[in-house]
Amino acid sequence: MIQPRILKGFRDFLPEQMIPKKKIIRLLETVFENYGFSPIDTPALEYTEILLGKGSGETDKQIYRFTDHGKRDVSLRFDLTVPLARYVSQHSNELVFPFKRYHIAPVWRGENTQKGRYREFYQCDFDILGSDSIFADYEILLVIKKGFEAIGCKDFTIHVNNRAILNGVLEHFNISTNYEDFLRIIDKIYKTDYEQIVSELSELVEDRSVVEEILTLLGVDKENTSGITGSRIFDVLNNVKTVLSDEYAVKVDDLMRIFTFMKDSQILDNYAFNPVITRGLDYYTGIVFETFINDRKEFGSVCSGGRYDNLTGLYSKNSVTGVGGSFGLDRLLSLLEDKGMLESKKSTSDVMIFNMDGENSEVYFSLAEKLADNNVRSEIIYEQKKIAAQFKFTEKKGITYAIITSKKELGQNKLNLKNIETGQEYKEINIEKACSIIRDNE
Amino acid sequence: MIQPRILKGFRDFLPEQMIPKKKIIRLLETVFENYGFSPIDTPALEYTEILLGKGSGETDKQIYRFTDHGKRDVSLRFDLTVPLARYVSQHSNELVFPFKRYHIAPVWRGENTQKGRYREFYQCDFDILGSDSIFADYEILLVIKKGFEAIGCKDFTIHVNNRAILNGVLEHFNISTNYEDFLRIIDKIYKTDYEQIVSELSELVEDRSVVEEILTLLGVDKENTSGITGSRIFDVLNNVKTVLSDEYAVKVDDLMRIFTFMKDSQILDNYAFNPVITRGLDYYTGIVFETFINDRKEFGSVCSGGRYDNLTGLYSKNSVTGVGGSFGLDRLLSLLEDKGMLESKKSTSDVMIFNMDGENSEVYFSLAEKLADNNVRSEIIYEQKKIAAQFKFTEKKGITYAIITSKKELGQNKLNLKNIETGQEYKEINIEKACSIIRDNE
Repeated sequence: MIQPRILKGFRDFLPEQMIPKKKIIRLLETVFENYGFSPIDTPALEYTEILLGKGSGETDKQIYRFTDHGKRDVSLRFDLTVPLARYVSQHSNELVFPFKRYHIAPVWRGENTQKGRYREFYQCDFDILGSDSIFADYEILLVIKKGFEAIGCKDFTIHVNNRAILNGVLEHFNISTNYEDFLRIIDKIYKTDYEQIVSELSELVEDRSVVEEILTLLGVDKENTSGITGSRIFDVLNNVKTVLSDEYAVKVDDLMRIFTFMKDSQILDNYAFNPVITRGLDYYTGIVFETFINDRKEFGSVCSGGRYDNLTGLYSKNSVTGVGGSFGLDRLLSLLEDKGMLESKKSTSDVMIFNMDGENSEVYFSLAEKLADNNVRSEIIYEQKKIAAQFKFTEKKGITYAIITSKKELGQNKLNLKNIETGQEYKEINIEKACSIIRDNE
Repeated sequence: MIQPRILKGFRDFLPEQMIPKKKIIRLLETVFENYGFSPIDTPALEYTEILLGKGSGETDKQIYRFTDHGKRDVSLRFDLTVPLARYVSQHSNELVFPFKRYHIAPVWRGENTQKGRYREFYQCDFDILGSDSIFADYEILLVIKKGFEAIGCKDFTIHVNNRAILNGVLEHFNISTNYEDFLRIIDKIYKTDYEQIVSELSELVEDRSVVEEILTLLGVDKENTSGITGSRIFDVLNNVKTVLSDEYAVKVDDLMRIFTFMKDSQILDNYAFNPVITRGLDYYTGIVFETFINDRKEFGSVCSGGRYDNLTGLYSKNSVTGVGGSFGLDRLLSLLEDKGMLESKKSTSDVMIFNMDGENSEVYFSLAEKLADNNVRSEIIYEQKKIAAQFKFTEKKGITYAIITSKKELGQNKLNLKNIETGQEYKEINIEKACSIIRDNE
């Protein structure tokens, strides 16, 4: 006999885990489709050359790479962005631009496992390709808001920045030699200790007063390390703009326009301007953003992304610009579980159909069909066990309602419904009534 | 620059391919959930030892197998049944039996590619584990019917058999030495030439009259090679039963009960008794079934399965019985495409929101939100291009409706809707009216 086990860093999903995961995926898909994003898919396995591209030390170490039956050097995808770049390059003649796609699929990384880190995990990416419009940026930021609302999160903040602003400010203060180090340190300011960061930065530029001047200009002080909100956004942006050269000032104007759209649409409450968010150095060339659930900041960003200039550079002479984000589905699920927002049900069924008629159980399947026609999902007990056993089974499955009815009663369009949680009984009602009671409880 | 390409046998899904695939998956998921099947998931990658189990030559050759970073011998799953067996063995204490699960996910086989065969393809499995009830068999057969109806197929036949019947008949005729060969040949009778099969069988048993007697008893003749339907099912089953020993006769009774349920529920039209379906020799121990679309039999079975005795034997001392099936999603998609039943749309959007206001385009996002609230999916053109260009873009995307409205009109809750396909225009209507026109057209 073989011991049943799975690989470290990989997971089985029991129904009580898969049901909420699937529910969240469906809600996000609906949001994406409401705003014109279409689903695509790419292979799990690709030529290693395609996936590694220029290669980076970190990815090289983590990628699942092997030689296939045809002696090809192949690898499992480690993200959905590289395959997208390949896909857009390969199919540019078949796609209509601006091309808006979403892609929710697993990726694989052989990294060290730790709490909340898996070797197989889902990415949930959405991008608008082939548009430089500020409205594409705005739409991405809007879709994030709609996504969180759809899954029942209200208390979140989407932190938005354009790294050009920080670049412009640092240029103004002549901080160029230590530029990258400066970015790396300041990026932590809203996650860690303010004083610590200020002293690290002061050590770097050898002048604490410059550091304080920069931070003040950026609207960051001891009490305001976690993003600038409301009308203060415009004050800070206007203030910053005064020191910037034209090249950078236009980026401030763009960002101000986006925040103005939000203000005019009365949705500014869910956004912050966060001048220290940088999200790495290379890839993003326009807006960048990270999203935090306000009372669970320790989980880190649950939706991040930004604007980039050249997605397809590795595979095509035609550069394709874009803007997009990615929901951290696994992190989001852990977070929602932590907040007690995940229903942990072992079944998707709304109602259990008890078996009161053994041999005649085929009638229950017609009942199930009628329930389904009324958007009520049911499950049938196949054998006429003792009623107590049927209740116990239903409770184990976490199903709220029971229909306890014989073939004869069903023939008269009468059934008995019971809410197992409250104990309330509804005697001799018809199917439509039963469905409406069940649906109203949802 | 790297040439953008994918591995042979693997596929990219463009929106026009992924939209119908996703739609069919969602429709099947709804059917599964209507009948109490819950979603689960398992890792793509497992220990090779788990996946190969006893191993079979064919699988060994096809499996994607390699050594991971931790020197583990790992493989990509080649089906969803072996992982299910491992899953049920490993989590038996956490699952509630009868355990009804569905699992729709990709599997990988490095087999030779040919038309309609891929190295990465989806399986769509549904099983009821831990019940011997005949109602579990019936429910699986019912779910198949509901599944095909949900995706818009009406003209299909689910061919049902219990291999015990054929076994019993062969025993009655003392055909035991060539038993396996006999099954292998007769299994082809409804797919290939009747005369050819009869002569092959005659050669095998060296007596043509016995072959003809067997076939007559099974209700198979020159004109009836593709399953027995309607009331003839009961005639044939009753007839077969007369020659069977008790051990086999009870299986006929079970099958007759199932067909009686179908008759009583007035759904018998979609089913056939097909005494020659065997589906391999080892795995299945009860009913077996295959499903054909009546005018596309050449595509082969698009949903197959049966009852098995011991799913978990390799991994656990506790044997778990079950019954289940699998929709051939890729084959089904090819078939629906062949029948012209797949909408090939490049977008999921119902309506394109034209840009008539450039700088003020943020208002279109509020409009999109209101449309979404009314279950209408929209897409916004970001820039105020010439109207002809906006029409062209919308047509390219395959979107039927256009909303052509300025900020000012929107402020007065008025908009102009146009059906691009028919040319019909609706001037100065409100959002609710527009949504109802768009939805009615679906």
